[in-house]
Amino acid sequence: MDGRNLTMLTDYYELTMMNAYYLKRMTDTVAVFDVFFRAYDESNYVIAAGLQQAVEYLLNLHFTDEDIKYLESTNGFDKGFLESLKDFKFTGNIYAVEEGTVVFPTEPLLIVEAPINQAQLVEGALLNILNFQTLIATKAARICRATDGGSVLEFGLRRAQAPDASIYGARAAVIGGCDTTSNVLAAQMFGVPPAGTHAHSWVMAFPTEIDAFRAYAEIYPDKCLLLVDTYDTLKSGVPNAIKVFDELKAKGIKPFGIRLDSGDLAYLSKQARKMLDDAGYKNAKICVSGDLDEYVIQSLKLQGACIDIYGVGTKMITSSHTPSLGGVYKLSALKDGNKYIPKMKVSDNPIKTTNPGRKSVYRLIDNHTKKALADIITLYDEKIDDNEDYKITSETERWKTMILTDFTAVPLLKNIIIGGKVVYDFPTLKQIKAKTKENLDAFWDEYKRNEKPQLFKVDLSDKLYSTKQKLIAATRGEIK
Amino acid sequence: MDGRNLTMLTDYYELTMMNAYYLKRMTDTVAVFDVFFRAYDESNYVIAAGLQQAVEYLLNLHFTDEDIKYLESTNGFDKGFLESLKDFKFTGNIYAVEEGTVVFPTEPLLIVEAPINQAQLVEGALLNILNFQTLIATKAARICRATDGGSVLEFGLRRAQAPDASIYGARAAVIGGCDTTSNVLAAQMFGVPPAGTHAHSWVMAFPTEIDAFRAYAEIYPDKCLLLVDTYDTLKSGVPNAIKVFDELKAKGIKPFGIRLDSGDLAYLSKQARKMLDDAGYKNAKICVSGDLDEYVIQSLKLQGACIDIYGVGTKMITSSHTPSLGGVYKLSALKDGNKYIPKMKVSDNPIKTTNPGRKSVYRLIDNHTKKALADIITLYDEKIDDNEDYKITSETERWKTMILTDFTAVPLLKNIIIGGKVVYDFPTLKQIKAKTKENLDAFWDEYKRNEKPQLFKVDLSDKLYSTKQKLIAATRGEIK
Repeated sequence: MDGRNLTMLTDYYELTMMNAYYLKRMTDTVAVFDVFFRAYDESNYVIAAGLQQAVEYLLNLHFTDEDIKYLESTNGFDKGFLESLKDFKFTGNIYAVEEGTVVFPTEPLLIVEAPINQAQLVEGALLNILNFQTLIATKAARICRATDGGSVLEFGLRRAQAPDASIYGARAAVIGGCDTTSNVLAAQMFGVPPAGTHAHSWVMAFPTEIDAFRAYAEIYPDKCLLLVDTYDTLKSGVPNAIKVFDELKAKGIKPFGIRLDSGDLAYLSKQARKMLDDAGYKNAKICVSGDLDEYVIQSLKLQGACIDIYGVGTKMITSSHTPSLGGVYKLSALKDGNKYIPKMKVSDNPIKTTNPGRKSVYRLIDNHTKKALADIITLYDEKIDDNEDYKITSETERWKTMILTDFTAVPLLKNIIIGGKVVYDFPTLKQIKAKTKENLDAFWDEYKRNEKPQLFKVDLSDKLYSTKQKLIAATRGEIK
Repeated sequence: MDGRNLTMLTDYYELTMMNAYYLKRMTDTVAVFDVFFRAYDESNYVIAAGLQQAVEYLLNLHFTDEDIKYLESTNGFDKGFLESLKDFKFTGNIYAVEEGTVVFPTEPLLIVEAPINQAQLVEGALLNILNFQTLIATKAARICRATDGGSVLEFGLRRAQAPDASIYGARAAVIGGCDTTSNVLAAQMFGVPPAGTHAHSWVMAFPTEIDAFRAYAEIYPDKCLLLVDTYDTLKSGVPNAIKVFDELKAKGIKPFGIRLDSGDLAYLSKQARKMLDDAGYKNAKICVSGDLDEYVIQSLKLQGACIDIYGVGTKMITSSHTPSLGGVYKLSALKDGNKYIPKMKVSDNPIKTTNPGRKSVYRLIDNHTKKALADIITLYDEKIDDNEDYKITSETERWKTMILTDFTAVPLLKNIIIGGKVVYDFPTLKQIKAKTKENLDAFWDEYKRNEKPQLFKVDLSDKLYSTKQKLIAATRGEIK
């Protein structure tokens, strides 16, 4: 996180609980917390993102004297506890799916195993970082998929929810499939080529539109993408652009194209395409922008709009239909010596009931089609033997079973931090983007469509299922 | 913005335009840009917020050598231009409404008057900062209004769109009316008392729920707010809380209350209230949390739910129904000597047509009721004389006129930065929160209700109206 110290980016109750654990001498109890999401309104799957920033955050954890003085001023803390914060650092383990991995509801996308006070402190910031980047990578993947091979530029800076959202949102958008971003700081930080040409204000700063276009073409002859909707797209903008393209052509320079930013993009893009083609500019690109998302793009495609490049801002950078991913952080086990004692929350609301125990996740890939068959959540010490058939059973409909054969079982969780030290080689953003594509390619279209996608099977191993049932029974017995 | 250098937080096209203005020797042309929003789906008005961070950003503008080297590497820039960036700083003027001011569509909430290259660079970051904080302050004001005097705590860290959104969103939530935040970093930065008690994980870390409650009560006897829904709210959580309250009472300590975080909050809060009352804890507070917003709170109120404190997270910190405010940044004038030459964008889409010229905004307040009558957008050199009657006319329905009498005309835009120097005393967050209340109180409820609010009159002065019509006619004449 660009070197900032975000140690105090935590909910106050984490600190009051840490103080209480300290006073109850429970600080060193090793706890296991799972990060997962229960459901996501907009899509069946998500694209995991944000791990690199989450790790940077964890490695940089430390309380400054000023922080400790501030906490003291809130009058909620024991002196010994505050003193102990001076040496605070993260010494635990992190297991996580790699960025770019397709993840489904209830699957742990990151697991923290650490002394309970460390594990407790990091809940808010970890969720904040992972929820947001995962949300935007997912939205971007959906938008890029809708273009069916078109190029998508990330344009969201001005509507992103504060600076970080524009920066890390641009990163996540590239993970999801975008080619580039207009955000110069994000481009600089993450090594992505920045994109952009000119705004309406450029056109308005000159006496006439054609003066503005000529001035732009003079300075950027090779990258001459002209914004044509400042006054009137078809009567003024496109004809003026064509005039300037003719002038470039006379100098032997190939014009780049035009951008449409308002009006009916289906109609205008088709008309503009015809005008450009008729003038001999079949290779000139048409770039459009203005409140695009996967639904609008799908509709433009159906109407035969002529669009090469999509500039996508507001609706991607905020994931506007569903602007939050409800990722949660739930205690799943406490360590007693070398044993993990499974823990779970039993809620009035079944979807809020958690999966207990330290866990693993396997993706079973068909050896012939190379497509994913199902994911299995297991206890961490279970292995899935791909030389044998494997029977899966739905958690809620126990009669729904299926025998899987001839598959490869791929464990999704990797060791990222062990004993406070990074043990993972972070891939480049380009590699993560490729991983997203590879992951998405392993799923049939039926799971990825926007409307009523088929639900991918995510089942519990028999051992995890029976552990969960026993704990539920024990909890309910205790209540009665 | 916490000392970070956000100079590179800009869209790439601003820099390519700046380079082009440099090469066209237009850099020193003074331009006027207006920040305003065209419409906001969820509400008729917004609460302006973010000015302080916008100013911090402007004052800190500077390109480092590394930034300039990076820009050079993108191959889009003239050497002389890059050299000129070494001395870049903001030397212009900023006029803005104060934070906490009620603002309506089309009204400039901030005006930049600066050499065009400076004005161009800051578009993206200014919009980013102002759009987000204004969005959240507005959402918070709506939520606080729905509680009808209840206390609202900001709980959004884990679902906010990246770290900054949680921090500056918490600030904006307090501006909108929240009493406090759970976000420790935000509390520390802005001097707000932090809030929070314990999580489900605290309960799960002990052998039984009552063990966990007792441990908490032992450490925080005076602030004993117990979370009662880990296992079963009415059969386990509330009875156990009452047992622990009895033990506190025996020691002469008044218990604080309980928190409900799942299930049917209307039903559970009424049942819990009855159980607490019957046990003699009529003063114990009931705090609820879980996907609350102004609509849910309104519904809870209608159902007679018994709630004292609302913990509001996801839906406030993301403004979930409408997660972006479409604030834009439009060129309204170019300076020629001492004269402002009005500029405007005429769009195919009427709502995208802008108001030309350097402008002022007046709010006309009835001298008897102290309520706002109308806002008038004028050219900057017009004065509204409150000793005379004033006739307002709708911009689109020219037959709709009204004579206003006996009012005070309050100018909304203040001088904030003049010639690159701050000339404004920034109020404290507490003062801004009070300003929001005072501002909202000046509007009848009809303008503030959630469902189909009455539209507040925002009209153009005759002089501005005729300037606009002349420019439209000139533009259309030019196109034909």
